[in-house]
Amino acid sequence: MIKFIEKDPYAPIQYSYEVSKILYESKSKFQNILVFENPFFGKILVLDDVVQITEKDEFFYHEMLAHVVMNAHPEPKKVVVIGGGDGGTVREVIKHKTVEKVYFIEIDEEVIQVSKKFFPDVACGMDDSRVEIKCMDGADFVKGRNSDIDIVIVDSTDIVGFAKSLFTDTFFSSIKNCLTENGLFVTLSESLHFHKDIVIGVQETMKSVFPTVDLYTAPIATYGGNWWTFSVGSMKPDPREILRTETIETKYYCSDIHQNSFLPKEMYAKLMAGKIVW
Amino acid sequence: MIKFIEKDPYAPIQYSYEVSKILYESKSKFQNILVFENPFFGKILVLDDVVQITEKDEFFYHEMLAHVVMNAHPEPKKVVVIGGGDGGTVREVIKHKTVEKVYFIEIDEEVIQVSKKFFPDVACGMDDSRVEIKCMDGADFVKGRNSDIDIVIVDSTDIVGFAKSLFTDTFFSSIKNCLTENGLFVTLSESLHFHKDIVIGVQETMKSVFPTVDLYTAPIATYGGNWWTFSVGSMKPDPREILRTETIETKYYCSDIHQNSFLPKEMYAKLMAGKIVW
Repeated sequence: MIKFIEKDPYAPIQYSYEVSKILYESKSKFQNILVFENPFFGKILVLDDVVQITEKDEFFYHEMLAHVVMNAHPEPKKVVVIGGGDGGTVREVIKHKTVEKVYFIEIDEEVIQVSKKFFPDVACGMDDSRVEIKCMDGADFVKGRNSDIDIVIVDSTDIVGFAKSLFTDTFFSSIKNCLTENGLFVTLSESLHFHKDIVIGVQETMKSVFPTVDLYTAPIATYGGNWWTFSVGSMKPDPREILRTETIETKYYCSDIHQNSFLPKEMYAKLMAGKIVW
Repeated sequence: MIKFIEKDPYAPIQYSYEVSKILYESKSKFQNILVFENPFFGKILVLDDVVQITEKDEFFYHEMLAHVVMNAHPEPKKVVVIGGGDGGTVREVIKHKTVEKVYFIEIDEEVIQVSKKFFPDVACGMDDSRVEIKCMDGADFVKGRNSDIDIVIVDSTDIVGFAKSLFTDTFFSSIKNCLTENGLFVTLSESLHFHKDIVIGVQETMKSVFPTVDLYTAPIATYGGNWWTFSVGSMKPDPREILRTETIETKYYCSDIHQNSFLPKEMYAKLMAGKIVW
């Protein structure tokens, strides 16, 4: 049996997947790209040896990344999605009828092409007339932009290599300058099981920039550590509160999940004080 | 590098762990027992090629298995723990001062001995004067017992092989007959990511026996699928409600986690109606 063995730079458990068929293998300008078929998960997209999405479970991540901040905003119109070249986050964002414009900033054009070819149900939002695709560095896009964006979503690869620049105070400050008065920003921030110190680090850097910072989680089987975290920075709205009533069709996200996904305040305080002992 | 590669009979992802040192290997009357050391998780206990506990993260499972039902009961005095030969569940149960008696029923005496030797911080409750250890089949212990137990906790291996008998309506009926009027029962029921049909099956069998049945989850990195479920059967109390005020020292469990861990009612209804599509 052919196996794909993930090389997650941080994970103390290695995950391996049966490979029914290799569908695509390439070295783009930025990274190694692999698409293979697995009997349980369907097609799997791998960048630099780390699983990015699977057909079966991609919606957990994409719904949770998009809808929490979208629903915490009173009326999100202009949205920036940085990374997420597969298009899953964009697909979720444009479910919101308030949205007038999505700037979809992906550094690696080849990931977009691969996703359109092999993951049409994930990439399906890219052709929406509200979506403008720009193949460039997200940091360059947000730099110097001025208070006209309601939501910024960073959907990057793990916090290593060229993605590291998306987790600095310089980048967070550029994002803050983009945001409108009720603006919100969200980014992945790794696993609470395996990468607690990284989670705390991202939160601390965000706290040095945004008036309100919070943390929520989702269980994702195919990301190392599984108890995946999302870090939110807000200009004003409380990310725990849902301000919108529009019903969005989802498989996992719902208002109860929105509220329950945030770390209990007592646990959050312990985490940030370094008093969580696992 | 030496690796332990887990052979989880249900999991579509195989997990592999670095082995720093093999500490114990044996074939008991019931199963293969392995203890090894890992740089991240510390000591790991493996039964029949499936990871049971790691020093680093065992408390997530043990706290969540024990405290939800213990705190949903107004005054738990008599408790039965079936399986969990490592002692972690017993350790959590006896934190509750109301507890007068714990019947600790483990079929495999060798697991108890191994845990006492290699996992003293997990096995530490076994010597408490309220704990009576019986090395026998849990099904035989509960059979014919009459309405004198407040809480029954099943802490078995995965639902394969000899553990299967702990998930039948016959066994659940025996447990029901053991329970006092406010009695509660909880058992593991595998992962919502990987084993949705098993979860539904356990819930349905329990619904044919107990007046109230519910489902809650916890993120556990070292169990296949990670989004681990716990199935509760109750004679009367609502398992979502906390009836006790005694403060128990825990690392993960707290009142917010208790409430947030239950599947939102809408999602639960969809799951049981077969309308969850992942």
